[in-house]
Amino acid sequence: MLLAKILLGACLAAQATPSDQYKLQVEALRVKGMRELGAFSLLDELVTGIGPRMSGSKGAENAVAWGEATANRLGFQKVRLVKCMVPHWERGGESIAIEGGATLTGCALGGSVGTPTGGIVAEVVEVGSIDEAKALGDRARGKIVFYNGPFDPTLIDTFGQYGKAVGQRVTGASTAAKGGAVAVLVRSMTSDLDDVPHTGVLQYEDGVAKIPAAALGLISANRLSTMLKLGPVRVKLTLGCKINPDVESASVISEITGSEHPEEVIVMGGHLDSWDKGRGAHDDGTGVVHALEALRLIKELGWKPKRTIRVVLFMDEEQKGRGAEAYKEFAVASKQKHIAGIESDRGGFAPRGFTTSLSTNQIAQVRSWQTALAPFGIEWIRPGGGGADVSPLIALGTKVFGFVPDSQRYFDYHHSDKDTLDKVNPREVELGALSLALLAWMISEEGLPKEQKL
Amino acid sequence: MLLAKILLGACLAAQATPSDQYKLQVEALRVKGMRELGAFSLLDELVTGIGPRMSGSKGAENAVAWGEATANRLGFQKVRLVKCMVPHWERGGESIAIEGGATLTGCALGGSVGTPTGGIVAEVVEVGSIDEAKALGDRARGKIVFYNGPFDPTLIDTFGQYGKAVGQRVTGASTAAKGGAVAVLVRSMTSDLDDVPHTGVLQYEDGVAKIPAAALGLISANRLSTMLKLGPVRVKLTLGCKINPDVESASVISEITGSEHPEEVIVMGGHLDSWDKGRGAHDDGTGVVHALEALRLIKELGWKPKRTIRVVLFMDEEQKGRGAEAYKEFAVASKQKHIAGIESDRGGFAPRGFTTSLSTNQIAQVRSWQTALAPFGIEWIRPGGGGADVSPLIALGTKVFGFVPDSQRYFDYHHSDKDTLDKVNPREVELGALSLALLAWMISEEGLPKEQKL
Repeated sequence: MLLAKILLGACLAAQATPSDQYKLQVEALRVKGMRELGAFSLLDELVTGIGPRMSGSKGAENAVAWGEATANRLGFQKVRLVKCMVPHWERGGESIAIEGGATLTGCALGGSVGTPTGGIVAEVVEVGSIDEAKALGDRARGKIVFYNGPFDPTLIDTFGQYGKAVGQRVTGASTAAKGGAVAVLVRSMTSDLDDVPHTGVLQYEDGVAKIPAAALGLISANRLSTMLKLGPVRVKLTLGCKINPDVESASVISEITGSEHPEEVIVMGGHLDSWDKGRGAHDDGTGVVHALEALRLIKELGWKPKRTIRVVLFMDEEQKGRGAEAYKEFAVASKQKHIAGIESDRGGFAPRGFTTSLSTNQIAQVRSWQTALAPFGIEWIRPGGGGADVSPLIALGTKVFGFVPDSQRYFDYHHSDKDTLDKVNPREVELGALSLALLAWMISEEGLPKEQKL
Repeated sequence: MLLAKILLGACLAAQATPSDQYKLQVEALRVKGMRELGAFSLLDELVTGIGPRMSGSKGAENAVAWGEATANRLGFQKVRLVKCMVPHWERGGESIAIEGGATLTGCALGGSVGTPTGGIVAEVVEVGSIDEAKALGDRARGKIVFYNGPFDPTLIDTFGQYGKAVGQRVTGASTAAKGGAVAVLVRSMTSDLDDVPHTGVLQYEDGVAKIPAAALGLISANRLSTMLKLGPVRVKLTLGCKINPDVESASVISEITGSEHPEEVIVMGGHLDSWDKGRGAHDDGTGVVHALEALRLIKELGWKPKRTIRVVLFMDEEQKGRGAEAYKEFAVASKQKHIAGIESDRGGFAPRGFTTSLSTNQIAQVRSWQTALAPFGIEWIRPGGGGADVSPLIALGTKVFGFVPDSQRYFDYHHSDKDTLDKVNPREVELGALSLALLAWMISEEGLPKEQKL
């Protein structure tokens, strides 16, 4: 009967019907959460009240103060700041135009150097990828390299499209500079065909000349590409951005301390900073309020978690990840065991699943967690990462979880003027908060599974 | 080993990893569909080019002509019309105002009688449900009964919210008329807090006085309710709508005839008619183009289905369901065996699953279909209905399937001026078309499973 027993065990795991174990918690979260829609109220405070909150800016300072005040107002415990030094980049004025011709709609990439006051005028050479830019060799000299590689629309997961294309934005400037280019223009990281530019961070390589870099809206990118097919095109690029010295900022932490194992910590959070474009509603206002609302519900429902559940609102995810690094140092110094880190940084759309660094063996053991989460739209728990902010904790033995909402619309708005409150559905963002609340609660009750022979 | 064998069988069914059987089809649909986004192009033609298309209207006539021309242009076989007589209700002018006070934003419910030319002025009495209206008894006499029962926000499936509240709209007028009411106002069937009214059909009971009925936007409904708490309120209601004699219209059918079993038919479709508010983008333009795009992809990929796959664009789903009834009669007369009916009438959002009238035993046998559909977002196949248009076929032994996209935003737009093209994401609606195409293809290849002892 050994085979039968093994099969029976695997089979029960696979076919588990929704567990009754957390039925009361699911019902309580559903009724209170969907009635109050607290996530959206908090989001309105953050993205309408505070607005954009780029690292180092006055907005970011206001966001830290709001995060601290909100955690106190919600009655969370041990509210405090974990300080870090963050970049302080400023955009300044900007204009991009075909010489003697049409204006192109664009904006500087985050972290770009500015142009000389009078701007840069140069001939444009178009490439479709980093590899094509490398292949230009000396033909890039004195030119503006125009990265026009589009998203691959055949990939259903839009994060896959982004991952394939975003190298042009991140490393395109230094790649082009090695060939002697004087600036780069980059097709916006989106597939939404309009003329709104999408910013985002670039990384300059050490020892390579820093050249200015700007994103173009898709219609401007297409127009420029069409003109290049007809003959040489010169563009004038003027960027007033500048890189200031780092300034002090902070992540905001707060918690409900565990009743049985206060030294075991479950972190959940998103990032408090945003870009200066739009309002950072989906990136990552929704992640911030997913975590705040999750802890608010747990608290107001009167639940006493066995393990500490902590909200961390990370500073500076977008540019250097300084908040995440500082939090990791704080975690080490605290001597608390960080067992799990749950991150929400993929928008506030309807829930679809969680990715996790748990092994497939461990995931099989918590199949009942997935069935408990199913009413909120969580259809699967799969191997994968957590996110940029909880990843440093992996070195401490922490298991990470990434909240995965539906991805189809995320890059329509991401890092652009379109990332505003009206793009967030109050019910969809609440369902994300319920998902985080229940997952954190189940971990606080049970801890994480160990590797087992099945 | 019998137990082991049984468990093994059940277990493989439950744990099936994505089947390789349809891998090539999934890939072909994904690449061609997501690159071309044909569903959105077709939707643009229908909802921008044709616009609203209420049963009996010029718009509906244009929509039938468009459907026929489109099926021919796409190269489908046996394009024809299945005629039916449909209601011809006209809206006319309308105004609703508190006597001597503010205007209320509202619109007549579909099928309502008009008021006398000078309007109706009467005192308002508020109720929260059909039961409360019944309990009014004689207190309704001479009054305008105001149904203000809201959606229950704690239900996560918004179709559950709609189902619980919509009786007020459908039967509220006759219920109030029995108590002597002179008109009804109904809180719009939505949870989106703005002042846009949502229309929809009402049904007058035979032998009961027909009284005028209008929907109010939520802000107007809340305002009226607040005023009623302060004292008596009289409202003046003027509706110019009228019920004309039925007119001839038609559903549009077209197909790829089966190569091995042409007499076995798989229907897939949505409804061609809409309300006169907005553009009927999600209701049900997306259902129409899901089916058209699905058959277009199958055709252009050069696949030859063993069984006939037929697109039916049903007329008059919104009012009397005459197209569905006429199609059933057509099916009977054709002597073809209608094995499956797949309906899309829940919007064009990201796919989540299919409901079906297959038994749980049969569903277990087609577990591999679900795993094949998973890349498009279909996470489950569950017991449930198909939809209003394919339901009449059940009497012929047809098994029905209902496409279920994410429901959270559907009733924000449904039957209102907000149901326009910009609310539809081109990628989300395409994923629905891919789901229909693959499901229809798999049924055409395998037929439907019979009941089996597991």
